[in-house]
Amino acid sequence: MPRILFHQQLDELKDKMLAMAALTQQAVESAVEAYLRRDDGLRKFIKQSERAIDRAQNELDEMAYELLAKQQPMAVDLRFIVAVIKIGGDLERTGDQAMAIAKRTKEILALEPVALPVDFAAMGEFVLHMTRSAVQALLEGDAALAESVRGMDDEIDRMYLAAFESLLKLIQEKPQYTKQAMNGILVAKTLELIADHASNISTDVVFWVRGADLRHQLSMAMD
Amino acid sequence: MPRILFHQQLDELKDKMLAMAALTQQAVESAVEAYLRRDDGLRKFIKQSERAIDRAQNELDEMAYELLAKQQPMAVDLRFIVAVIKIGGDLERTGDQAMAIAKRTKEILALEPVALPVDFAAMGEFVLHMTRSAVQALLEGDAALAESVRGMDDEIDRMYLAAFESLLKLIQEKPQYTKQAMNGILVAKTLELIADHASNISTDVVFWVRGADLRHQLSMAMD
Repeated sequence: MPRILFHQQLDELKDKMLAMAALTQQAVESAVEAYLRRDDGLRKFIKQSERAIDRAQNELDEMAYELLAKQQPMAVDLRFIVAVIKIGGDLERTGDQAMAIAKRTKEILALEPVALPVDFAAMGEFVLHMTRSAVQALLEGDAALAESVRGMDDEIDRMYLAAFESLLKLIQEKPQYTKQAMNGILVAKTLELIADHASNISTDVVFWVRGADLRHQLSMAMD
Repeated sequence: MPRILFHQQLDELKDKMLAMAALTQQAVESAVEAYLRRDDGLRKFIKQSERAIDRAQNELDEMAYELLAKQQPMAVDLRFIVAVIKIGGDLERTGDQAMAIAKRTKEILALEPVALPVDFAAMGEFVLHMTRSAVQALLEGDAALAESVRGMDDEIDRMYLAAFESLLKLIQEKPQYTKQAMNGILVAKTLELIADHASNISTDVVFWVRGADLRHQLSMAMD
């Protein structure tokens, strides 16, 4: 296969990755919104999103393995393709976390509504920003952006611990809201896990770009 | 390269994977033991283990990418090698979770000892059993074993939720132990995350073995 066609296929792989990331993003957004608004209709929609994400991963994997098997890509492309496979796994698990939030929403719908002392909307936006930036870093081969996402992980850890402490305090002061607060702790943890996946994606991007840089330097040194 | 040499190299890759898994296993075991025994010496040792795990992953990745780049492996071997790269990532993150338990141990050492109503030793053994079985499933290409590990994930989720509820009850009844109980909730969650990695590994094994089966059936059908 001519090199130019191979690069067209790599672009197609990137498009598939972007489409899968968009689905994941949307699932997390919907899950957080359904939780906050106690919106049962939106909650049910997450399951459909999750299936679409799984199908997107299958397509992505299929194309990636085919490229690996048939094209014998050069080292830098090979690492990119393997990074895409790994990142697809993290996006799929991010979709699972959206489902976990939907499950918590179903639980909370059966309980008396309580205003919890946690800004879940801000946490949700923060983790979505991380996921979005991590995928952007992959598509643009931007190691600095990927590194910055890894740095954001500390901030989300802090947000999670603050949420955890506020909700424990609520349990101590108003034990009648224990169930709602417990549910809130689990939602906050789930958001933190989504951030972990964004961090994993970024690690793969850094690994791929650095590998590419290293190879680039070697080939320049040999010129 | 002759086919027989390629298979020797695949065996070497398996050995590296097994060695990395053993290091990870040991790190988790030590972390749980240090936490339970409040053993600061053992706790400090986890950091060394984590570095050894990172080095093992680098070696594993290096060999895997070299095999992919130079050998143009057939589809089933290609999927195996990519599975090894992905599984190395999950083992590395398992090592990070051992470090997280070591961090919690450092915190707890500064607090008054309290007997918590959670069998952390049993949880630790259960997740280690999952990790061990998942790696064994990879090395033996045993999809049924891998499926059984995925089934165990529900059990560890139950153990975690039970631990969470017992510790919340402790906080409500003896608020003076809130810090110790919070710490315990985080340790239980970390063990549950290690189980998630074992589950991820098993998913990769199933995907690889099924791909291999499918291909096997196709090649038989063409005979």
